[in-house]
Amino acid sequence: MTKTRQTPRATVTFRPHGTVAHVPAGATILDAATDAGVQVEAPCGGQGRCGRCKVRAEGPVVLRPHAHLTPAEADAGFVLACQTLVDGDVTVTVPAPRERREQPRGHAIAQPEALPLTCDWRQDPAVRTFEVDIEPPSLLDNTNDFDRLRRALAQQHGIKEVRAELPILRRLGHDLRAASWKVNVTLEMRDWVYGTYLPPRLIRVYPSAFGQRSMGVAVDLGTTSVVVYLVDFSTAQVVDTAGAYNKQISCGDDVISRIIYAKRDGGLGRLQRLAVETINELLAELQERNRVELYEIHEVAVAGNTTMTHLLLGLDPRYLRQEPYIPTVSVPPKLVAGELGLRVNALARVHGMPAIGSYVGGDITAGVVSSGLYATDKLTVFIDIGTNGEMVLGNRDWLVACACSAGPAFEGGGVGCGMRATAGAVEDVWVDSRTLEPTFRTVDGAAPRGICGSGLIDLVAELFMTGVIDKGGRFNRGLATPRVREGVSGHEYVAVWGDESADGCDIAVSENDINNLLRAKAAVYAGVSTLCRSVGVDLADVEQFLIGGAFGEYIDVEKAIHMGLLPDLPPQRFKFLGNTSALGAYMALLCVNVRHEVLDVAAKMTYLELSADNTFMDEYTSALFLPHTDIEAFPSVAELLRAAGIDAAAAHHAPGRPGGTVKEDA
Amino acid sequence: MTKTRQTPRATVTFRPHGTVAHVPAGATILDAATDAGVQVEAPCGGQGRCGRCKVRAEGPVVLRPHAHLTPAEADAGFVLACQTLVDGDVTVTVPAPRERREQPRGHAIAQPEALPLTCDWRQDPAVRTFEVDIEPPSLLDNTNDFDRLRRALAQQHGIKEVRAELPILRRLGHDLRAASWKVNVTLEMRDWVYGTYLPPRLIRVYPSAFGQRSMGVAVDLGTTSVVVYLVDFSTAQVVDTAGAYNKQISCGDDVISRIIYAKRDGGLGRLQRLAVETINELLAELQERNRVELYEIHEVAVAGNTTMTHLLLGLDPRYLRQEPYIPTVSVPPKLVAGELGLRVNALARVHGMPAIGSYVGGDITAGVVSSGLYATDKLTVFIDIGTNGEMVLGNRDWLVACACSAGPAFEGGGVGCGMRATAGAVEDVWVDSRTLEPTFRTVDGAAPRGICGSGLIDLVAELFMTGVIDKGGRFNRGLATPRVREGVSGHEYVAVWGDESADGCDIAVSENDINNLLRAKAAVYAGVSTLCRSVGVDLADVEQFLIGGAFGEYIDVEKAIHMGLLPDLPPQRFKFLGNTSALGAYMALLCVNVRHEVLDVAAKMTYLELSADNTFMDEYTSALFLPHTDIEAFPSVAELLRAAGIDAAAAHHAPGRPGGTVKEDA
Repeated sequence: MTKTRQTPRATVTFRPHGTVAHVPAGATILDAATDAGVQVEAPCGGQGRCGRCKVRAEGPVVLRPHAHLTPAEADAGFVLACQTLVDGDVTVTVPAPRERREQPRGHAIAQPEALPLTCDWRQDPAVRTFEVDIEPPSLLDNTNDFDRLRRALAQQHGIKEVRAELPILRRLGHDLRAASWKVNVTLEMRDWVYGTYLPPRLIRVYPSAFGQRSMGVAVDLGTTSVVVYLVDFSTAQVVDTAGAYNKQISCGDDVISRIIYAKRDGGLGRLQRLAVETINELLAELQERNRVELYEIHEVAVAGNTTMTHLLLGLDPRYLRQEPYIPTVSVPPKLVAGELGLRVNALARVHGMPAIGSYVGGDITAGVVSSGLYATDKLTVFIDIGTNGEMVLGNRDWLVACACSAGPAFEGGGVGCGMRATAGAVEDVWVDSRTLEPTFRTVDGAAPRGICGSGLIDLVAELFMTGVIDKGGRFNRGLATPRVREGVSGHEYVAVWGDESADGCDIAVSENDINNLLRAKAAVYAGVSTLCRSVGVDLADVEQFLIGGAFGEYIDVEKAIHMGLLPDLPPQRFKFLGNTSALGAYMALLCVNVRHEVLDVAAKMTYLELSADNTFMDEYTSALFLPHTDIEAFPSVAELLRAAGIDAAAAHHAPGRPGGTVKEDA
Repeated sequence: MTKTRQTPRATVTFRPHGTVAHVPAGATILDAATDAGVQVEAPCGGQGRCGRCKVRAEGPVVLRPHAHLTPAEADAGFVLACQTLVDGDVTVTVPAPRERREQPRGHAIAQPEALPLTCDWRQDPAVRTFEVDIEPPSLLDNTNDFDRLRRALAQQHGIKEVRAELPILRRLGHDLRAASWKVNVTLEMRDWVYGTYLPPRLIRVYPSAFGQRSMGVAVDLGTTSVVVYLVDFSTAQVVDTAGAYNKQISCGDDVISRIIYAKRDGGLGRLQRLAVETINELLAELQERNRVELYEIHEVAVAGNTTMTHLLLGLDPRYLRQEPYIPTVSVPPKLVAGELGLRVNALARVHGMPAIGSYVGGDITAGVVSSGLYATDKLTVFIDIGTNGEMVLGNRDWLVACACSAGPAFEGGGVGCGMRATAGAVEDVWVDSRTLEPTFRTVDGAAPRGICGSGLIDLVAELFMTGVIDKGGRFNRGLATPRVREGVSGHEYVAVWGDESADGCDIAVSENDINNLLRAKAAVYAGVSTLCRSVGVDLADVEQFLIGGAFGEYIDVEKAIHMGLLPDLPPQRFKFLGNTSALGAYMALLCVNVRHEVLDVAAKMTYLELSADNTFMDEYTSALFLPHTDIEAFPSVAELLRAAGIDAAAAHHAPGRPGGTVKEDA
């Protein structure tokens, strides 16, 4: 017999939690933390790039070289959790998080009557429950349990055929007898394969005394936050909503970091579990609060971007990131909740919204349907801005879509004072053109802790429109205000003085921060203009500009035009639609024909790969200015600048270099 | 926090194996043995009824009262494993088994050309493999992997739609690239739901360089033995066969003991696992011997009785045994091998043969099809004898079936010298009418160790025809032969003297043994005659009498008629068909239309429940004699007896009382 050498194991104790992880020697502290369920921020996915996973370690560790600790921090025992290998029993102190992991802001959803639904969910439900009174078996009528149930369904409800899978058959004998043969039978009525409807499928058999409650859930599976909507099929109303940050954040902030993480040994499995855990904890919360039993949830609809959908299904995402950026599948396969481990009826059908390409996912297909774009005559742009910007142009006859990487700036990442839109985030800013003093509002009115994406857009727009920065994002050095000063990393504008802020520190944006923001907005604007150019449409002819997504909701259109994020169209053409992805999932949950429509939309939409389009880089470079190299493309802004006596053509400094694409070549 | 009291654990060490089990205190030694994989015979399923699980135990144990040990055995430290609870660390010595657990006798199977197949498996295979040369993706052609595969299948093979499940999609990206986009694609071509064919389903994607081997397995899942047939789809030939005893035997010898065992905590799960393990070990043997990879096995067909099918699927069998004896389902649901844990391609479809009722299972449906009964014009009886006897009467237009409990006598159970048909079992016996000396043949020609079912039938028939026993099974006390003697439990006939036998002990049958055999044959005969009576047919009009099943193969028709097991028909009407159940599974594996035919047969067949039939008990009582109360029903036997000068009407003693039914009332 060959002996295998046992890897020695080490114990890692986390403070202040007191949680303990047992890991093989050589594991990183970050691995140990993820194992133990201890939250350590690692926006870069543990690659040693961001320096955010600082912890204090005592005990034998091996450090990989990196450049993120000051000598003072290193002296104080700080290490990067992702770059530090455990080499024996170690005690790790995790600093209080820089930003509390609160729930993301809640998302209201429209009532069913207000939706663009052509179906009547009352007439054509996907799941129905029937009360059946079954004749008990006898020696002279010894038909088996399942055929007996089928016979009763046929006689009492005209349902000719029914399908049953192993899990329900394993309980059927017991369930029928426990209910004394008087049962409610829940059936999936509208199951189809490539357009052919199959006979109804058994989801649940239970005593008819228990009533007929039937619920569904729509899941908006975002890279950052996940929201679950509990729907009562008897009223089609959203009964309750629960949201949380995606637990996958511990493996990376953005889709690229997660794809990198998935390549690790066991990484994909962990990401799949974390997605399911995030949803399951929200389900548990909703079930508890609304006294709903797990098995009463009979259907699930999920909208997410292509990476999130791949990770939820456990599909390998690596090819999404390698040129030519290919998903495994666009239409998620037929599956039931039990296959994924979701905390609902194990036989509940899970409907994943179909994707268009690697960077235009089911969230966008859901948005195109729920926004009504797919059914309108008007030339329409639909846009969803986040770490990636996705945009769709078209009308009922044709659709073309693309995606660009905006980077993390709109979610507060890569910006010194940036933060997510949680309590204390500065979300609206006005700058007085005379005094250059800011007025601001924070999320929940809490003491300011940083600036979120919408606040940053406001601030940059205001600084530009008041002449504090020039079209290249450079500070005007000659202004008589203490708010513009030389900071550690160059010039900056102090939006909040330390005596007003939550932690006593000044909150300021630097030229570097502004450059990051310019790159983000340039990518989005260039995406929209490339889309228009690809089909020979003039941006000015766009009749509707629909803004979806959680972030979009909080953008101030006027300021977004001022900084050149949005095109200079009359304000009435813009519409904020809120969480169009969630709304699409909700509609698909309610109406079977919506499930067909999202498939039609996905099949019809042309995907424009920007890396294969030569004009995109030109458009991007032109858009790296405030509001744009070509000020004539923004006539209303030019007018305002003229009125304020600001020379839009003046530049204090050369613009920042274009940002790299986040994708990786094969 | 509430503290739960921990059950103390105990260590049980088995000798001579040296295997160790860790169990909670209070577990039985039998449980510990099953946990540890140590074979301890327990034909009664651990109910303390049979006394066969004797072991020697040292250490703290608690004994349940029972009546199976002699004082000498108890003094020597013997206990019943099923009635002895572990109360601390115990050492258990397991005696060498009374009967080696050898492979059951092999089963030949017909070649495809000889089968009653209306399909041509070459033209209409259920599984096909296609070579596909896929264009690799590019930035300008970024269709997802699955749609790219579908497109190529449509273009190169005209296959319009393909379905894929999660397990195959999880590997698809890798598999396509690892094969450099030149792949073989194995598809299930003939998947249907209630008569509607579905688009082909992906089973496997692999480099086309690997060739196109495609295999299937037919499984004959018997209560006692399990045989797996490996079939090469390219030739339709059975390439190899492997058989073993059903590992569930450790939980009980017959279906009733297993159903009782399944009621225990975890019992059903264990029985399910043991069925799968039995099949998997045979598969491993076949894969090893034939150098077949697990994933090259693309389809599975299983025939088994209703209890075996329930246990394999993990369906609760308890209602099969409670009046009115109801299966959960007769047609097994659609499922793939991965759901059961079978060691073949996880996506291979598993086709379970449909049952008729609780005691007429898929093995019989398979037999009705493979025997050709379902397609014949002749009035035919099909019979399969084992622990239960199942019989079908009919022709192409109508079919009626019933089952009776023959008890374990035909498998060597409940008979002092009885054993299964393994090496050393006396299987053919002749008794010289003058000297009353026997001549016999054993399985494999080994030294005799006992008598198997066919040997017992022979012996009883011979003893009757030579006047050694009377029509009631009583010994003629006045014979001048030392072979008839007063034994421990009454009169007996010594078939083998100790100096000829394997273990030096005499092998004898007692009146008690003969009574058990009479009850078994009476049940079978009464089943057939009740079936005839139920449709107003005279037994003498039966044109074909087909005998299927592993046991049937070894019966001597003439002697079986002499003892009244088979009706007195001209010998040419009897046909031995061998393992008709396995043959049916094999045919269903080869031909899609056979799968439809078994469903038609199952739907068409009328199930006669003998417990609801008043005439059965009368028929049974009349059949408790040799050959029958009514000797006129056996004219050829009467003729022979007359010729031999034996008075068939003479009785040395009253007949044995009728055996109880093995079923349990609700």
